[in-house]
Amino acid sequence: MQVVRSAALPLSAIHIDDRYWNRYTRLITETAIPYQWEILNDRLPGAPPSFCLENFRIAAGESSGERKGTVFQDSDAAKWLEAVAYSLAIHPDPSLEKTADELIALMGRAQSSDGYLNTYFTLVDREGRWSNLAEGHELYCAGHLIEAATAYYEVTGKDTLLNIARRFADLIDEVFGPGENQLHGYPGHPEIELALVKLYRTTGQKRYLELAKYFVDTRGEKPNYFLEEMAGPDFHHIFNELKEYDPLYSQSHLPVRQQNTAEGHAVRAVYLYCAMADLAGEYNDGELLDRCTILWRNITEKRMFITGSIGSSGYWERFTTDYDLPNDSNYSETCASIGLALFGLRMSRITGDASYFDTVERALYNTVRAGIAMEGDRYFYVNPLEVWPDACIGHSSKSHIKPVRQKWFDVACCPTNVARTFTSLGQYLYSVSQDSVYINLFIQNEAVFSMAGKKVSLALRTDYPRTGDIKLRVETENVPFALLIRVPGFAENFKLVINGRPADYELVQGYCRVFRVWGHDNVGFSFDIRPRIVYANPLVRANCGKAALARGPEVYCLEEIDNGKNLSALYLDPSARPEEVWQEDLLGGTMLIRCKGKRLAAPDMGASFSADRTCRFEDVTITAVPYGSWCNRKSGEMLVWIHELFKP
Amino acid sequence: MQVVRSAALPLSAIHIDDRYWNRYTRLITETAIPYQWEILNDRLPGAPPSFCLENFRIAAGESSGERKGTVFQDSDAAKWLEAVAYSLAIHPDPSLEKTADELIALMGRAQSSDGYLNTYFTLVDREGRWSNLAEGHELYCAGHLIEAATAYYEVTGKDTLLNIARRFADLIDEVFGPGENQLHGYPGHPEIELALVKLYRTTGQKRYLELAKYFVDTRGEKPNYFLEEMAGPDFHHIFNELKEYDPLYSQSHLPVRQQNTAEGHAVRAVYLYCAMADLAGEYNDGELLDRCTILWRNITEKRMFITGSIGSSGYWERFTTDYDLPNDSNYSETCASIGLALFGLRMSRITGDASYFDTVERALYNTVRAGIAMEGDRYFYVNPLEVWPDACIGHSSKSHIKPVRQKWFDVACCPTNVARTFTSLGQYLYSVSQDSVYINLFIQNEAVFSMAGKKVSLALRTDYPRTGDIKLRVETENVPFALLIRVPGFAENFKLVINGRPADYELVQGYCRVFRVWGHDNVGFSFDIRPRIVYANPLVRANCGKAALARGPEVYCLEEIDNGKNLSALYLDPSARPEEVWQEDLLGGTMLIRCKGKRLAAPDMGASFSADRTCRFEDVTITAVPYGSWCNRKSGEMLVWIHELFKP
Repeated sequence: MQVVRSAALPLSAIHIDDRYWNRYTRLITETAIPYQWEILNDRLPGAPPSFCLENFRIAAGESSGERKGTVFQDSDAAKWLEAVAYSLAIHPDPSLEKTADELIALMGRAQSSDGYLNTYFTLVDREGRWSNLAEGHELYCAGHLIEAATAYYEVTGKDTLLNIARRFADLIDEVFGPGENQLHGYPGHPEIELALVKLYRTTGQKRYLELAKYFVDTRGEKPNYFLEEMAGPDFHHIFNELKEYDPLYSQSHLPVRQQNTAEGHAVRAVYLYCAMADLAGEYNDGELLDRCTILWRNITEKRMFITGSIGSSGYWERFTTDYDLPNDSNYSETCASIGLALFGLRMSRITGDASYFDTVERALYNTVRAGIAMEGDRYFYVNPLEVWPDACIGHSSKSHIKPVRQKWFDVACCPTNVARTFTSLGQYLYSVSQDSVYINLFIQNEAVFSMAGKKVSLALRTDYPRTGDIKLRVETENVPFALLIRVPGFAENFKLVINGRPADYELVQGYCRVFRVWGHDNVGFSFDIRPRIVYANPLVRANCGKAALARGPEVYCLEEIDNGKNLSALYLDPSARPEEVWQEDLLGGTMLIRCKGKRLAAPDMGASFSADRTCRFEDVTITAVPYGSWCNRKSGEMLVWIHELFKP
Repeated sequence: MQVVRSAALPLSAIHIDDRYWNRYTRLITETAIPYQWEILNDRLPGAPPSFCLENFRIAAGESSGERKGTVFQDSDAAKWLEAVAYSLAIHPDPSLEKTADELIALMGRAQSSDGYLNTYFTLVDREGRWSNLAEGHELYCAGHLIEAATAYYEVTGKDTLLNIARRFADLIDEVFGPGENQLHGYPGHPEIELALVKLYRTTGQKRYLELAKYFVDTRGEKPNYFLEEMAGPDFHHIFNELKEYDPLYSQSHLPVRQQNTAEGHAVRAVYLYCAMADLAGEYNDGELLDRCTILWRNITEKRMFITGSIGSSGYWERFTTDYDLPNDSNYSETCASIGLALFGLRMSRITGDASYFDTVERALYNTVRAGIAMEGDRYFYVNPLEVWPDACIGHSSKSHIKPVRQKWFDVACCPTNVARTFTSLGQYLYSVSQDSVYINLFIQNEAVFSMAGKKVSLALRTDYPRTGDIKLRVETENVPFALLIRVPGFAENFKLVINGRPADYELVQGYCRVFRVWGHDNVGFSFDIRPRIVYANPLVRANCGKAALARGPEVYCLEEIDNGKNLSALYLDPSARPEEVWQEDLLGGTMLIRCKGKRLAAPDMGASFSADRTCRFEDVTITAVPYGSWCNRKSGEMLVWIHELFKP
């Protein structure tokens, strides 16, 4: 496969002002970032303490006491900083920037003289540095530090954090590699690989790219590095659940170029695949790109939930097998959907294929959005497709399923990940190459950039996904380039109008492509967005005979507040046309779907089974809300996949 | 509620020779008991070592090395001895008895001078005796020792083991109780309570009954004994998963007389309820009997699987909530069904109600039977109602679901429990009171006992459950008593014939009752056994819109070998009459059920969901086998609850 490349516009070049997304981008800047700062400082009553910043203070010698929290606690600060950087790009805030600068200075003081920076292995297990790559998360935390550093530098121009990160990266580059005196290991949790690509792009230093490639290509070689580590005499496990380690958990069961299915811990997997896509692009590595395509297809066709989430098993937070997509016991971690969106974004940039954005949208509009409350201070880590609160009992198989969003988590990767994702939403909007501008997502914004040395201004106006009508104002001075507008997979009746007249276009890899010399032009494009029924493959055991409601990029779900208890007893009548109903006052404006259906009821039946058939169907109207909006009114049952009422 | 009482006949008074059950009773005697002996001695290649007997040898000072295995490993030897005792009752075997006597002698040598007998707390944690009742299983192991001792004494008349058990029980009676210098605790895992009732019945010593009552009545008092234990400075957990202890786990969240729902670890629960039923009978305690009735109804109506199994959650092996009965991730431990059968047996004896045996039969004919392979050397610990082998992956949420029976388990409670259950099947057959003989199960046998000082012989002939025709020959000399024949809940068209003539009878609490002076009489009774469809309550989320096939006491399931892959895509047509087909050569004679149905297929659909409706129904014939017989041919998918084909 041919590798093509396009890049994002800088976040500061894009100003998003969108009815649908403002709820979240403002939320992050105004609520979540300050809220998370309080949490990281252990100042929020009722939330589990983070210990995150206190650990840095102890490492800097500015506080005393025991270092606490998970082994990867440092990464929460890095992800918060990354979110702050993106937030500053779209919403300058000197006070917030000052707070961030102080945290960065603290990190600098906590850094060891050789560049090493990790509070766990500095304070808790000094001898253990690089000795437990499988579980220690040192390289993972370093990766998030590097991501934060490149973001903060790109936005603010300040290089303090970048230099901290570079010193650490340089140390890592000395420690790891093919040399005789180097460790031939790689991260137990992929993350630094994609971060090193960013560091290379920011600094131009190829050694970082090469190190990323080394980590990716070494993974899975025999004998397995992690198993060797664990066989050592002094090895001790950090995590009980990894005592019987299977390299599949960390995608190290095979060299990546031999992997055909997405396996193991879902977040680890997609972070790794992001780096593989980056490297395929950077090195024009068609073999690696093919492998990315195989893994992408395996995920999106057979191992992804309709809500754009992944990870079928709560234990080990992992992929399981094709079509194993349980609704009520899955993991579907918010972070994994974020990673999937990042993987899709990269794949689109190196293939020029719009279809990746169907999955990016699926993840962002559904699972990632569901990951944070509309109040901004409650989070879902796990995102089931069916919740029966009575059965979500602590100390049970479903104890990982929370029927309401939580204030914080002992393992708190998701909240900061959501924050950095929504503040960097701009990265998804456009892809730009030498002669092409791609419009990927339909979020109202204004963007300014250069093309062939000339300024180009774009103003995109839409109320998507409420409608599929989009207006684009182009302002430039006779610049020839191709404008490529993504035609979503669900779009029907796509139309293009330029300066008031229906226009011809080519359909290229899912993009509507128009090449012309642009000046002061009005582009209008539209497609129908109507409620639709999505059918499950009968091979998905959990969903055989079931259907789901969707509309545009949004998957819908039923909530108890609208439909009463026992949502499993509802049957969708596929011959009845689902109707949309706009509710201006509901959750900042919500499109409901209503559909005729039935409820299977047996009001006189007390026992769980009976030889007497007392069930009967009652007529009902089913009301569905977007999955991303669920659990913002009242706790209760929720369900995505609805029984289909067959008429054989 | 009035407490009535009847008792079992001694096992040696009953000779079972039954087509259906011989497969299992002979299997236990001929295969399982010798096989388990090899396992307990760590002599079986390929099975996890038990360490069980080696631990006793070490404790007796006759071997050296480290005591290994679970904290409750001793109980496996006790349950094996109990099974041996029952086996000797029905099939004398001097060589086996000699082996058992040698094990008993070894246990005697391992017993401490004060009567204490537990290899873990003698060898591993000498200081920890009685300090971790929540997890230590000392009283649990003592209970199994006592059960083995009473069984061995009743059958062989030898009192060596009984004296070992009594010395230990006397010590326990000194240590525990309401006195100032006594511990006010009770077992973390109920078991000794019901064993102490047996010890009382065998020895006539009321102190054992009183101790059982103390343990039952003290349970759940505030402050919670286990939480107090765990708050102690020297406490250390034996089990990681109990670090966040909830007293509900051990039914100690409330005093038992205040409990309304079956909660916590399912085996613990039903063992406790057995003792409660025993005590209700012994003390004529109507309040306790009412509580047993409430708990029984909660289980059997709302928390029991159709296969007679309990324990909805794999984690903590516990009850969860009403109607939460997941098919593919449940625990449904074999031991829990054994405990449920024991509970039902006791309830029937103190209430005189036949309906308890519907559940006893359900457990024995389905889950307990499924717990052992027809070859006798493989076991299920967990008994799901739906198995998709591809998704039963190690290190996942379904790693507890095994698609094939296992040779042995690290925690090996079930195999020996099955062995003692099938060798003591005779205990379920009859209940006898001063003036009544109850026939509870329809298993071909001959029994001899005394009634009013005269010998009574019964010969019951049947091929149940292949048919519902039963012949009973009564031989005695003018003895007046009531014969009570259970009429199963599923029975239709019940008929009674005495000496060739249709006879009148009273229906009393589910029994067909005939009082007369018996001499040399031929009794015939019959009822129709036909395949039937059982409907799920729509409140059972996992089964809404599904039905199951059953016939007599047997629940049926579909297997891949008969129906192909993806059993979830099969739909049962309830308007089609299911038909029975006898297969003489299949698994020792098996009644199949065949039924018309449909398969939902989408052969061209690759992705897990699609906006295109490509599914269509194909006509199929569904073939079902008894659940108890599943997985005796070839590993593959299995499913109990089948989609119902609605015709609205």
